[in-house]
Amino acid sequence: MASERMIDAQRTAVESMIQGLMIYKEGEEGEPIVDMRSDTVTKPTERMRVEMALATVGDDVFGDDPTVQVLESEVAELLGKEAALFVPSGTMGNLICVLVHCEARGSECLLGDESHMHIYEQGGIATIGGVHPRTLPNNPDGTIDLERIPGAIRPLDDHFPVSRLLILENTHNKKGGRVLSLEYMKAAAAICQQHGIKLHIDGARLWNAAIALQVTPAAMVEHADSVNVCLSKGLGAPVGSVIASDAEFIFKARRLRKALGGGMRQVGVLAAAARVALKDNLPRLAQDHAHARYLATQLSSVPGIKIDLSAVETNLVFINTGEFSANDIVLGARERGIWIIPVNPYTIRVAFHFQVTTADVELAVKVIKEVIADVASKK
Amino acid sequence: MASERMIDAQRTAVESMIQGLMIYKEGEEGEPIVDMRSDTVTKPTERMRVEMALATVGDDVFGDDPTVQVLESEVAELLGKEAALFVPSGTMGNLICVLVHCEARGSECLLGDESHMHIYEQGGIATIGGVHPRTLPNNPDGTIDLERIPGAIRPLDDHFPVSRLLILENTHNKKGGRVLSLEYMKAAAAICQQHGIKLHIDGARLWNAAIALQVTPAAMVEHADSVNVCLSKGLGAPVGSVIASDAEFIFKARRLRKALGGGMRQVGVLAAAARVALKDNLPRLAQDHAHARYLATQLSSVPGIKIDLSAVETNLVFINTGEFSANDIVLGARERGIWIIPVNPYTIRVAFHFQVTTADVELAVKVIKEVIADVASKK
Amino acid sequence: MASERMIDAQRTAVESMIQGLMIYKEGEEGEPIVDMRSDTVTKPTERMRVEMALATVGDDVFGDDPTVQVLESEVAELLGKEAALFVPSGTMGNLICVLVHCEARGSECLLGDESHMHIYEQGGIATIGGVHPRTLPNNPDGTIDLERIPGAIRPLDDHFPVSRLLILENTHNKKGGRVLSLEYMKAAAAICQQHGIKLHIDGARLWNAAIALQVTPAAMVEHADSVNVCLSKGLGAPVGSVIASDAEFIFKARRLRKALGGGMRQVGVLAAAARVALKDNLPRLAQDHAHARYLATQLSSVPGIKIDLSAVETNLVFINTGEFSANDIVLGARERGIWIIPVNPYTIRVAFHFQVTTADVELAVKVIKEVIADVASKK
Amino acid sequence: MASERMIDAQRTAVESMIQGLMIYKEGEEGEPIVDMRSDTVTKPTERMRVEMALATVGDDVFGDDPTVQVLESEVAELLGKEAALFVPSGTMGNLICVLVHCEARGSECLLGDESHMHIYEQGGIATIGGVHPRTLPNNPDGTIDLERIPGAIRPLDDHFPVSRLLILENTHNKKGGRVLSLEYMKAAAAICQQHGIKLHIDGARLWNAAIALQVTPAAMVEHADSVNVCLSKGLGAPVGSVIASDAEFIFKARRLRKALGGGMRQVGVLAAAARVALKDNLPRLAQDHAHARYLATQLSSVPGIKIDLSAVETNLVFINTGEFSANDIVLGARERGIWIIPVNPYTIRVAFHFQVTTADVELAVKVIKEVIADVASKK
Repeated sequence: MASERMIDAQRTAVESMIQGLMIYKEGEEGEPIVDMRSDTVTKPTERMRVEMALATVGDDVFGDDPTVQVLESEVAELLGKEAALFVPSGTMGNLICVLVHCEARGSECLLGDESHMHIYEQGGIATIGGVHPRTLPNNPDGTIDLERIPGAIRPLDDHFPVSRLLILENTHNKKGGRVLSLEYMKAAAAICQQHGIKLHIDGARLWNAAIALQVTPAAMVEHADSVNVCLSKGLGAPVGSVIASDAEFIFKARRLRKALGGGMRQVGVLAAAARVALKDNLPRLAQDHAHARYLATQLSSVPGIKIDLSAVETNLVFINTGEFSANDIVLGARERGIWIIPVNPYTIRVAFHFQVTTADVELAVKVIKEVIADVASKK
Repeated sequence: MASERMIDAQRTAVESMIQGLMIYKEGEEGEPIVDMRSDTVTKPTERMRVEMALATVGDDVFGDDPTVQVLESEVAELLGKEAALFVPSGTMGNLICVLVHCEARGSECLLGDESHMHIYEQGGIATIGGVHPRTLPNNPDGTIDLERIPGAIRPLDDHFPVSRLLILENTHNKKGGRVLSLEYMKAAAAICQQHGIKLHIDGARLWNAAIALQVTPAAMVEHADSVNVCLSKGLGAPVGSVIASDAEFIFKARRLRKALGGGMRQVGVLAAAARVALKDNLPRLAQDHAHARYLATQLSSVPGIKIDLSAVETNLVFINTGEFSANDIVLGARERGIWIIPVNPYTIRVAFHFQVTTADVELAVKVIKEVIADVASKK
Repeated sequence: MASERMIDAQRTAVESMIQGLMIYKEGEEGEPIVDMRSDTVTKPTERMRVEMALATVGDDVFGDDPTVQVLESEVAELLGKEAALFVPSGTMGNLICVLVHCEARGSECLLGDESHMHIYEQGGIATIGGVHPRTLPNNPDGTIDLERIPGAIRPLDDHFPVSRLLILENTHNKKGGRVLSLEYMKAAAAICQQHGIKLHIDGARLWNAAIALQVTPAAMVEHADSVNVCLSKGLGAPVGSVIASDAEFIFKARRLRKALGGGMRQVGVLAAAARVALKDNLPRLAQDHAHARYLATQLSSVPGIKIDLSAVETNLVFINTGEFSANDIVLGARERGIWIIPVNPYTIRVAFHFQVTTADVELAVKVIKEVIADVASKK
Repeated sequence: MASERMIDAQRTAVESMIQGLMIYKEGEEGEPIVDMRSDTVTKPTERMRVEMALATVGDDVFGDDPTVQVLESEVAELLGKEAALFVPSGTMGNLICVLVHCEARGSECLLGDESHMHIYEQGGIATIGGVHPRTLPNNPDGTIDLERIPGAIRPLDDHFPVSRLLILENTHNKKGGRVLSLEYMKAAAAICQQHGIKLHIDGARLWNAAIALQVTPAAMVEHADSVNVCLSKGLGAPVGSVIASDAEFIFKARRLRKALGGGMRQVGVLAAAARVALKDNLPRLAQDHAHARYLATQLSSVPGIKIDLSAVETNLVFINTGEFSANDIVLGARERGIWIIPVNPYTIRVAFHFQVTTADVELAVKVIKEVIADVASKK
C-alpha cells in the first residue's frame, strides 16, 4: 500500500507538470493581460486541476459520489445549515429554493426590483415555476426598505396570491457589490417570521459580504431559511453553486434538481475543484477588496472622474466617468490589455478576483489613468 | 515555445502518475469486483482525467469555452445535425427538446408507455413544462405500432390539445436495450411529416443502436428533428449529454438551458473528458455487445433459466429466473463480488460497459452459474 | 306586503306568457324533430326561465349571492359532502379538483386512458396545471382493473413524480354510459386510502349512475374525496357544474376558481335555473333510461344490427351497424328529423334526455328501422 | 304565426309582472338605501330579466348559441375589432389575452405596478400562465411614463425573458377611475409597434373612458392589439366580459377559454341580459359621471375634507378625509343606509352606477355631510 509521503510526492510531480502544460497552452491564445470584466472569468488553478484529475467519484444520481458529499457537508457547516446540495449553477440554485418555498401553486415572492433573480435569471421563477414575483425598490445600498415589506405581504383573499417568501441579495450585484449588514439581515428575518413567510438569501457573493464584515458566512445567514452560494465567481471553481437549508428542504431540493435535469453522474470531478476553491480562495477575498479600494482611491482623484468610495465595500468598483464616454475609456483600456466593462454610457464596472494580482491592479490604474488623459485631450 | 514532442512526454508522465494514484485510492475502498448494475457506474479513465486537468476553458455562459464548443461541433457532425448543445444530464436534454418542439402552451406529445421519459424523468415535461403526454403501448421490441400513431394525433378541436411531437427511444432501455431499425425510424418519421408533427429521439444509448446495426450514428437519426445522446453510460464520460438539431432549435435550446439553470461556467473540464469518451469508447461498444451475447448464451443453457437470445441486441441482458427467486441469485452473486440487479421478482438485468473486461464476464458467468446451482439445491 | 297566493298567481301568469313566446320563437327556426345527438343539447324549460327572471342575486365574488349559496348547499347535501362550489363548466370543475388534490408541484394522477378528462379536456391538468397524467386502460364497462392501481402508484424516488390522485368516471361517457357499481367504488377508495392517495369522481353523469343503481347520489360518492357533477346534460340547466368535498377543499377550490377566471358576479340567475333542473329533472332520469332500453331492445332485433343490451345501463345506446355504414343511417335519419351521431364508421350513438318524449322515442325507432331497411335494400 | 304586435304585448305583460315580483322580493331583505361600494353591485334590471327568460339558446361549446353570437358581433363592432369572445369574468378575459400574446414559454409582459391585473387577479398570469410580469410605476393619473418603456423591453439575451406585451388599464381603477387620453394610447401603441411588442387594454371600465372623452369605444382601442371589456360593473349585466381582437387571436382565445373551463353551454341566457346592458346602460354612464362630479363638488367645500376635483373624470370619487378617520365616516354613513368604502385610513371611495339615482346622490351628500359634522364634533 502506498504511503502518505509517496502520494504527496506524486501529487507534487503531477502538479508541476500540469502547470508546465498550462503555461504553454495559455501562451498560444490571444488573451487579456488583466481581465477585470467579471469575477466569473477565473480559470481553474493547477491545484483544482490536480484534484479534479484525482477525484474519487461515483454516480451521484444514486448518491454514490463521495467527493460531492464531502463538499456538501463542508459548505453546510460553513453556512451553519443542516444540509446542502451541489447544483450546476446559481440560477438553478435560486430557482430550486424558490420552488421549494413556494411548493404550492398560487404563491408569490417579494424581491428587489434590481435583484439578479428578477432581472438576469430569465424570469424562470415565473416562466418555469409559476411563482408570481412582486418587486420592491432596491435602495442604492442594495437593501429593500423594511417598512415596505409588511404592506406588500398579501392578506388572505381570493383576489391575491399567497405571499410565501422574501428574497434578499447579499452582496448586491447590480448595486455595486454592496453588503447588507448583520443587523439588516436579522431585522428582515424577524419581519418574515412575524408574518409567516420565509427568507431566502441569494448569496452568489455571500463570501465577499462575510469577509467585508469580518464575520463567518454562517453568521451572515443565521436567520435565513435557505441560501444559495456560488463556487465560481470569487472562489474560482470551474462550475457550481451550493444551496443550504434544513434536511427536509434539501430532500425536496434534490428531487427538484432531478426534475430540472441538474442531477449529474460522476460529479465529484467538479466537487473536487470546488473544495480547493473554498480552501484556497475564500481567505484570499480580502485581498480582492483591498485591490478594489486601492484602484477606487487612485482613480477617484482623476479630474472629471467620480467614485463613491464609501460604496466600495467588496470586489466591485463603479466609476462615474462624468463627461467622458465610458465606452471610449473601456475601448482604450482594452487595446492595452486591460479588460473592463461599461454598464451604462457614463459608468464603468471593474471586478476583482484572485487572478488579478497586485501588480495587475497597479498596471490597470496606470493604464486607465493614461486612457482617461487621452480621452480628455481629444475632447 | 514548447514542442509537440515535449508536450507528449509531459502528458505521458502525468498520465502514469495519475494512474498510480488512482489504483492506490481504489484499493482503499470496498468495491465490487465486477459492477454490472448499470452502464452509468463507469468511472473516468486516466486519459479523461488528464484531459480534464489540462482543458482550455472559458465562461460558457458567455460562449467563451473553446473545449465545449469543439465537443458540440464533434457531436453535431457525428449525428449529422447542424448544431449541438452540451447539457448536464439526459433528463435536461430530453426536457429541453420537448419544450422547444412544444414551445406553445397547450401542446401534447406522443410517447411510449414504458419509455424512460414517461416513467423515469419525474414527469418533468408536464410538471415543469406543461406539456400533456399521451402514451402508446411499447411493444416488447421497444417499438410503438406505427398504425396507431395517426389515430392518436389530435384533430384541431377545442376539446383537444395540439399534437406536436412523437418521441422514440433507441435503444429502448426498459425493453432490454432493443434496437429500433433504420426502416422503422424512417417510417415513423414519414408519418410525422405527413401529419405535421416533429420526431425526437431519446438516444441515451443511440451509440449502442448504431454499433449494433453497423451504421453511423448520423444514419440512425437522419430523419429525426432532434436527438438527445448521453456521454456517460456506455461512453463513460463523468457527466453530460448532448442534444442536436438545426441551428435555430439549438438557439432556443440554449436559452431554455439557461432558464433551467443548466448553463455552466468553465464547463470545458467536463467537455474535455467527454471528448476522450467519444474517441476511446465509442468503437469499444461492440465488445460490450459481444460480452452480453456471450453471457446470455452461456447462461441460457442453465436448467430453469430462460433468456431470449434474439432480444440480446446490445449491452443489456434480461434473465428470466423461472422458478428461482431473482433476489436470491442477485444476493448470492453480490456476496462473491458480482453486482447485478433484479428488475422484478423473476427477472435479473445485467449491464455491460467498457469497465467490464472479458475476464470479468467469464468470472461473472462462472459465479452466476454456481449461485444458481446453490439456489437450486436449496429448493 | 304581497301574499304568498298573489305571488303564485303572478308566477303562473309569467310562466304561461313565457311559454307562449317560446313556442313562437322555436317555430321560426329550422330544428330537429328529435335531437338525440347528446344530452347537452337540452334547452331551459319555462320554469327555469321564470326562476332565472325572478332570481334574487348579489355579487358572488364577494359571497353576496344568496341563490347560488342555496344551490351549493342543496348539492352538497345531495352528495353527502360538507361543502360545494358552483363552476361554469365540468372542465373547470375537474381541473380545480385535480389542482387542489395536486397542489404541490411535481404531482401525478392516475386516470383511465379513455376518460373524458384525459381525452376531451384539452389536457388542461398538464397544460394549465402542470400535473402529470398516468393512464391505465379503461375496460369496456368503464372500470380500471383495481389490481393495476397499486403497481401504478409511485414509490418515493427522485426518478418519479408523486402519485396523489386516482380519478374515476361514473357513468363512463366514452364506454357508453356504463355504471361503476357501489362495490367497485368502495374497493377503489379502499386502495386509495391504503396507499395514501385521494379519489376524485368525474360525475358529469353521476345522477344517471345513482338512478340506475337506485341509490342516492350521496351513496355513490360516499368514499370519494371530491366529486364533480354537471347541472346541464341530463338535468338540463343552461350552464354549470358543481364540485363537492370538505370545507377546506372547497375554500381552496374557490381561490382557484377566481384565479382561473370562473368567479362570476350575479350568478344567481344561473343558479336559479339549476335549482329547477335538480328538482324537476333528477327524478325524470329513470325515464331516459327506460327510453334507452326500449329503443335498444326494439332495434336489437333488426337484421344486421347488433346492440349489447346488457351494456345499456343509462341514457346512452351504442348501435353496432354491422355491415351497414353508420354514416348512411345517420344521414338518412337526419333527413327525417331524427338527429343521432356516428362515433366510428360502424357505430352510432343515441343519447336520451328529458326533452326526448316517449312519442319521440317511438318515432325514432320507426324512422331508424325504415332507414336501415332503405340502406339494406341499396346494398 | 304570432304577429309582432302580439309578441310585444306579451313582453309588456311579462315585464310588468316580473317587476311586481321583484319589488316584493327586494322589500323582504335588509339592504342599503344607496349602495355606492362599487359598480359591481348592480342587479339585473327587469328588462334584462325578461330577455334572459326569453333568450333563444344553444350549446355554445359547439358554437350553437345564437344569442351569444349576436352579442359577440355587437361588441366586436363597438370596439372596431374583427372578432370577440364572451368570457365569464374580466379576470379570465385578461388572462386569456395575456396567454395568447405570450403563447410561447419564456415570455414577459410590462404592466403598471398598481394595475388591477398585477394586484387583484391572484397573479394568475404567472401562477396559471407562467408569464413573467415586469412592473413600471403607475402615475397618479393611471399612466406609465412612456419614456420608461423602451428601457424595460428586454434585448435578446439568454439572461432575459422575451418581452412580448404592454398592458394599460383604462380607466385606471386603483388610481380613481382616471382616463388615459387618446393621444397617450396612440403614443404607447407606437412605442409597442416600434419595438415589436403587442398592446393589450384592460378596459374593464373602457366604456367610462369613452364617455368621459366623448369618443367611441372603438376610438379608444384603435391602436390596441386586444382589449377586455366588462359587461357587469357600470353596464350592469349580471355576468360576463368580452375580449376583442382579430379573428386569429379570438380563435386561439376560444381554445384557451375551453382549457380554463370557461366554455359554457346555453350561455345565451347571460348574453341576452348583456345585450340589454349595452343598449340601455352604455348611454347612461354620462349621468354616473355627472353624479360623481356633483358629489365631489358638494363635499369638497366641507372643512377638513380634500377632494382633487380635476381627478374626478369618471364614476369614482376619492375623498381625502384629512384628520378625520375614514372608517368613522364610513360606519356613520352605513348606519344611515349609505354604503361607501374606506380604501385606506384617510381615504374613502364612492362609486357611481345606474342604480344610484340623482335623488340617491343628493341623499348621500346630505348624509355624508352630517356624518362628517358628527365626527368633527366628537374630536
